[in-house]
Amino acid sequence: MSAVGLIVEYNPLHNGHVHHYTRAKEITGAEHSVAVLSGPFLQRGEPGIVSKFARAEMALAMGADLVIELPVSYAVQPAEWFAYGGVALLHATGVVDSLCFGTESGSLDLLLPVSRLLADESPELQERISIHLREGMNYPAAYSRAAAAAAGIGGSEEELLQMLQKPNHTLGLHYLIALHRLKSAIRPFTIPRIHAGYHDEMPSHSAIASATAVRRMLLTQDLDAAAPYLPESTLRILSREFREGRGPVTWESFRGPLMHLLLTSSAQELETLHEVTEGLENRLKRALYALKQPTTEALLAALKTKRYTHTKLQRMLTHILLRHNKAEMSPAILAAGPGYIRVLGFSRAGQGLLKTMKKTAALPVLVKPTSFDHPQLELDLRASAAYANVYPAPDVRQMFRDYFEAPIRRFD
Amino acid sequence: MSAVGLIVEYNPLHNGHVHHYTRAKEITGAEHSVAVLSGPFLQRGEPGIVSKFARAEMALAMGADLVIELPVSYAVQPAEWFAYGGVALLHATGVVDSLCFGTESGSLDLLLPVSRLLADESPELQERISIHLREGMNYPAAYSRAAAAAAGIGGSEEELLQMLQKPNHTLGLHYLIALHRLKSAIRPFTIPRIHAGYHDEMPSHSAIASATAVRRMLLTQDLDAAAPYLPESTLRILSREFREGRGPVTWESFRGPLMHLLLTSSAQELETLHEVTEGLENRLKRALYALKQPTTEALLAALKTKRYTHTKLQRMLTHILLRHNKAEMSPAILAAGPGYIRVLGFSRAGQGLLKTMKKTAALPVLVKPTSFDHPQLELDLRASAAYANVYPAPDVRQMFRDYFEAPIRRFD
Repeated sequence: MSAVGLIVEYNPLHNGHVHHYTRAKEITGAEHSVAVLSGPFLQRGEPGIVSKFARAEMALAMGADLVIELPVSYAVQPAEWFAYGGVALLHATGVVDSLCFGTESGSLDLLLPVSRLLADESPELQERISIHLREGMNYPAAYSRAAAAAAGIGGSEEELLQMLQKPNHTLGLHYLIALHRLKSAIRPFTIPRIHAGYHDEMPSHSAIASATAVRRMLLTQDLDAAAPYLPESTLRILSREFREGRGPVTWESFRGPLMHLLLTSSAQELETLHEVTEGLENRLKRALYALKQPTTEALLAALKTKRYTHTKLQRMLTHILLRHNKAEMSPAILAAGPGYIRVLGFSRAGQGLLKTMKKTAALPVLVKPTSFDHPQLELDLRASAAYANVYPAPDVRQMFRDYFEAPIRRFD
Repeated sequence: MSAVGLIVEYNPLHNGHVHHYTRAKEITGAEHSVAVLSGPFLQRGEPGIVSKFARAEMALAMGADLVIELPVSYAVQPAEWFAYGGVALLHATGVVDSLCFGTESGSLDLLLPVSRLLADESPELQERISIHLREGMNYPAAYSRAAAAAAGIGGSEEELLQMLQKPNHTLGLHYLIALHRLKSAIRPFTIPRIHAGYHDEMPSHSAIASATAVRRMLLTQDLDAAAPYLPESTLRILSREFREGRGPVTWESFRGPLMHLLLTSSAQELETLHEVTEGLENRLKRALYALKQPTTEALLAALKTKRYTHTKLQRMLTHILLRHNKAEMSPAILAAGPGYIRVLGFSRAGQGLLKTMKKTAALPVLVKPTSFDHPQLELDLRASAAYANVYPAPDVRQMFRDYFEAPIRRFD
């Protein structure tokens, strides 16, 4: 039995993801697949457009055999920790033998040797990053430059720097670094991303559009506008979720609670929260008074400087919203890795994988999370409850769905 | 120059309040009036139906000369502290020589001697209260019984107990106790409340209805239904506020932020907040899972026991919403009294009072609060901002209106 691991957000699952999934199974030759899916909040610091359950359902409908949740502690983090959490989970299943991810180049030729050099994070690398941050660079730029300099042997520094300016190369590099650190036998593969840049907002191909473009169509037009870019199952699930008042969820859905928290927190309280660094607590408090509109979008615009990426600021707002303090997201805590494997759904073959995992898994496998205590799990349940609290039609059972409902089974 | 003090909520100001105001000026013979008005949150732990500014405007339209804000630290408290805060503010103006309040009986004959006995809160009284609380009584019942026993000389214990079961007698008693404690020269007067019991939900007289009944008409019917019970100025102000998206505000307006806070706070965090006592933090967390609807009303119903009054629970939810911790609401802090006199509005005569207060006031008089630092003021500004955040049409200028706008002047 062989299984390929995928680390995904599926926000929502579109034709580009189906292409990736199909190619991943082809090039790895894997019989089965395991998807690590971010919970309600995503890497760029945004809520999913629909719940983690609905997105897991999309993955199962596409053919994924087992969907497990990336804890919010890793899901809403810079590439390093996001990648580490996802790879550590796949590694911990004991049933995944390959990992396949998309990159802009579709090649690991440069990334693989560099990842080996960077896996032992040297004080020198940290020092270079700090220097670039002090020069006023934002973190991704500082990391890319420091990594390129540290690893740029044989004249490849400039080439590497250019690569790392593409977000999927950076993510890919960190998947590879995580595999090294975990001394994992999982073999990495990459597939070139096709026809849609990561940040593209407009569809550029007849059947493939970026998730960003798809969300824009869903939010500003309707399901029909996005239909050409989505598998029929995604359309059906989105349509049902929207109709039943469980979406679409956007940052503006959280306007009320977010503003309330910012208005009722002192700068000192904000400063205790994860990612609220370098005086951003004061910048936040000051920004509120000057907003033209009390929207999350206006707040983000007011906070933006060259120093902070939009993504960093969105992640910070997510941590404020979910009240993640610095201690529970410290590097020491994160380095310990995820503490459990939370199952969101499975196919019949996935059920077989779960049976195997009773022997192979290095972490507790949670089919229902009620019976298990873990600080990261607390945060996952909190995130899911807070997410469902802003549904157009809020419903207590949805807020606590993790407790009330078994994972999704798709046996067809 | 003589001025009568009134301690009010005006939620909204109705014909019964006009009657009280007119009678208060008659029986005291005062030329002027000073109203201490609760800010956005009220004594029974509810938000005002419209903002403190709109309610101050109603008071000025009726004829009040000076409207000052009762800090949220006192406004959302049991009768003792509510009364103490209000009386201390009137006393601190140095221009108020009488205080007039409504009672069920319209007589101070029994309350005055009892208040003298209770003014020096004895350990014995505290001990009796504790005993009754341990017997399972709620606080108001325990206080009434202990006070009646402590002060019930000459066979008046039963009579006193019956009196204190009426909420305005209890409030009146605490006004009198506060006057004693402050050694204030302000003379107390009372007026019988007419035609509408405090808790009556249905109008029982052609022009007088309780504020509760008026709010019910406003929320379930419309302005026209409530019109017979409201002065024209109140109608005009309510109509404008509703039309411009600044109301009506109810507990359900805060559903989103309140649930978000409860969902993202641990029981330990909740336990640090004011009024979250005796394991209510666990009761709160457990109640959430079992709610049929994620509404404030359903939550209050789930929390209710004989031990806790609806009012106590609503106040607790207000303190959770506004994140008031136990330290900032401790008896030692509250006993120090309000730290400033925040002016919400004034008439031409009120402007004269303010001029006099430059010499007579025992506390800083704040016409604009931006120039002053005080922990209670922080909480007032926070409460007003959080209040405006849930307007049907939220607006940053309204959230920070305390900073942006001068007090209301009504010079006619």
